[in-house]
Amino acid sequence: MSAAPATRADYAVFHEIATRWQDNDVYGHLNNVVYYELLDTVVNRYLIEAGVLDPATSDRIGLVVESGCKYFASLAYPEPVEIGLRVAHVGNSSVRYEVGAFAKDSDTAAAEAFFVHVYVDAKSRRPAPLRDDFRAVVEALRVA
Amino acid sequence: MSAAPATRADYAVFHEIATRWQDNDVYGHLNNVVYYELLDTVVNRYLIEAGVLDPATSDRIGLVVESGCKYFASLAYPEPVEIGLRVAHVGNSSVRYEVGAFAKDSDTAAAEAFFVHVYVDAKSRRPAPLRDDFRAVVEALRVA
Amino acid sequence: MSAAPATRADYAVFHEIATRWQDNDVYGHLNNVVYYELLDTVVNRYLIEAGVLDPATSDRIGLVVESGCKYFASLAYPEPVEIGLRVAHVGNSSVRYEVGAFAKDSDTAAAEAFFVHVYVDAKSRRPAPLRDDFRAVVEALRVA
Amino acid sequence: MSAAPATRADYAVFHEIATRWQDNDVYGHLNNVVYYELLDTVVNRYLIEAGVLDPATSDRIGLVVESGCKYFASLAYPEPVEIGLRVAHVGNSSVRYEVGAFAKDSDTAAAEAFFVHVYVDAKSRRPAPLRDDFRAVVEALRVA
Repeated sequence: MSAAPATRADYAVFHEIATRWQDNDVYGHLNNVVYYELLDTVVNRYLIEAGVLDPATSDRIGLVVESGCKYFASLAYPEPVEIGLRVAHVGNSSVRYEVGAFAKDSDTAAAEAFFVHVYVDAKSRRPAPLRDDFRAVVEALRVA
Repeated sequence: MSAAPATRADYAVFHEIATRWQDNDVYGHLNNVVYYELLDTVVNRYLIEAGVLDPATSDRIGLVVESGCKYFASLAYPEPVEIGLRVAHVGNSSVRYEVGAFAKDSDTAAAEAFFVHVYVDAKSRRPAPLRDDFRAVVEALRVA
Repeated sequence: MSAAPATRADYAVFHEIATRWQDNDVYGHLNNVVYYELLDTVVNRYLIEAGVLDPATSDRIGLVVESGCKYFASLAYPEPVEIGLRVAHVGNSSVRYEVGAFAKDSDTAAAEAFFVHVYVDAKSRRPAPLRDDFRAVVEALRVA
Repeated sequence: MSAAPATRADYAVFHEIATRWQDNDVYGHLNNVVYYELLDTVVNRYLIEAGVLDPATSDRIGLVVESGCKYFASLAYPEPVEIGLRVAHVGNSSVRYEVGAFAKDSDTAAAEAFFVHVYVDAKSRRPAPLRDDFRAVVEALRVA
């Protein structure tokens, strides 16, 4: 993540998510934690809808080993948030996902977050190499 | 709330809300608590968008004095939820709001929830009569 | 639940729970939804610690079919909350759990909540009769 | 944060926090987001209890501008979590707080998280220098 906030062109796909009453903390804006909830939400939704993850039955699941977020501007309920998603790195058994959170009328990210998923065997919880169909789905989220 | 689940015709307005990864509990479906989050979210959003509530500055705010929910079927992330909203009772300083949570393709509520807001002075937190403009906005949510 | 708030003598066991920054909403007190989180937390913890529930492996799990809460006074982070727990009804395959939320120095409940668990087969999700060991554990939560 | 997980000696003060049913996600362990909730909870609680922050009335409040977490091992409800807190950097108007999350019987952190608070004027939301009493309170959280 660079010093200046990302723009919409930096992301591959977008999901709009309704904010919730409880997302605002006592300071009247989205709590810093909420951006991580949205990150989890869009990454897994993308994988589930692409048919390469079923949290209940898949033999490989993604566990978060590192995450981070930079906050540039406030967002607040009841405004919806648009989350841009991209993949920054694909390893043997890991993927780095990055998101930008945008107000509806803004081209500049209010926050940029990432996490690294290590994919593990659902039973043993030991790292396992990405399958080819999974790799193709996440590679499609790269931004040139 | 009657014994049979409500249908979409029982509600005045609808909001679609994206579910989140964390809404599913270990049993793989929306936790019972989530329906109350959605209730809070749609009631306050309706009031804010109608221009009769600003949580940061309004001199009257709504505090929940009673709430309840009946659960008929499971919903699950990543499917969106459609929340139907209606008003069942308008008192001197209180309003009973009721919602139904629907899967996208269903006419039968998966859950029905309600809460009673008592409107209070934002500083003293003592009950205060509803203003006329506020009353008109909530009366518009009645279903004949 | 009667008109007057319950007292500590009305509950069988107590758990202290730390409140969290995010529990307070923009009005500076515990959001109405939080009480349901605490209810879920103390009921399941009691069952897990008594050895009659393992959410990952038990062949019978509890699904909430109805819940409700009455709110009498505000609580707020960072004060801890003490949750009193009792059982009000034990049926063939269902249990009604009731909790009171108390400020640390108060004998009067700030809120009273309940939910009804129907115990179901973990796979089929069809109601199943309570096992004897489970029944004994929840019967111990009755208050004479 | 170094490659090896921190130990208890790396933190200045500890808070025990009860985990909640909803902290576990569908994989049966604390969701990655929960660690940020606990971070927010212990930092603000420390400041409030030390008498240098009242979120409702203070003229200076802390906004998070960056956060991050590394995850080494799983924790799970219903086990409590012990959160160690320290301060790593104190600037003119900012503070970097770091926490370690420990299982009750472990000397090795299951996760290490941080955030940077920039303290701003509560009304203008522009950075403001730390007051002396505030600075003394956070300096006390340094670990030599």
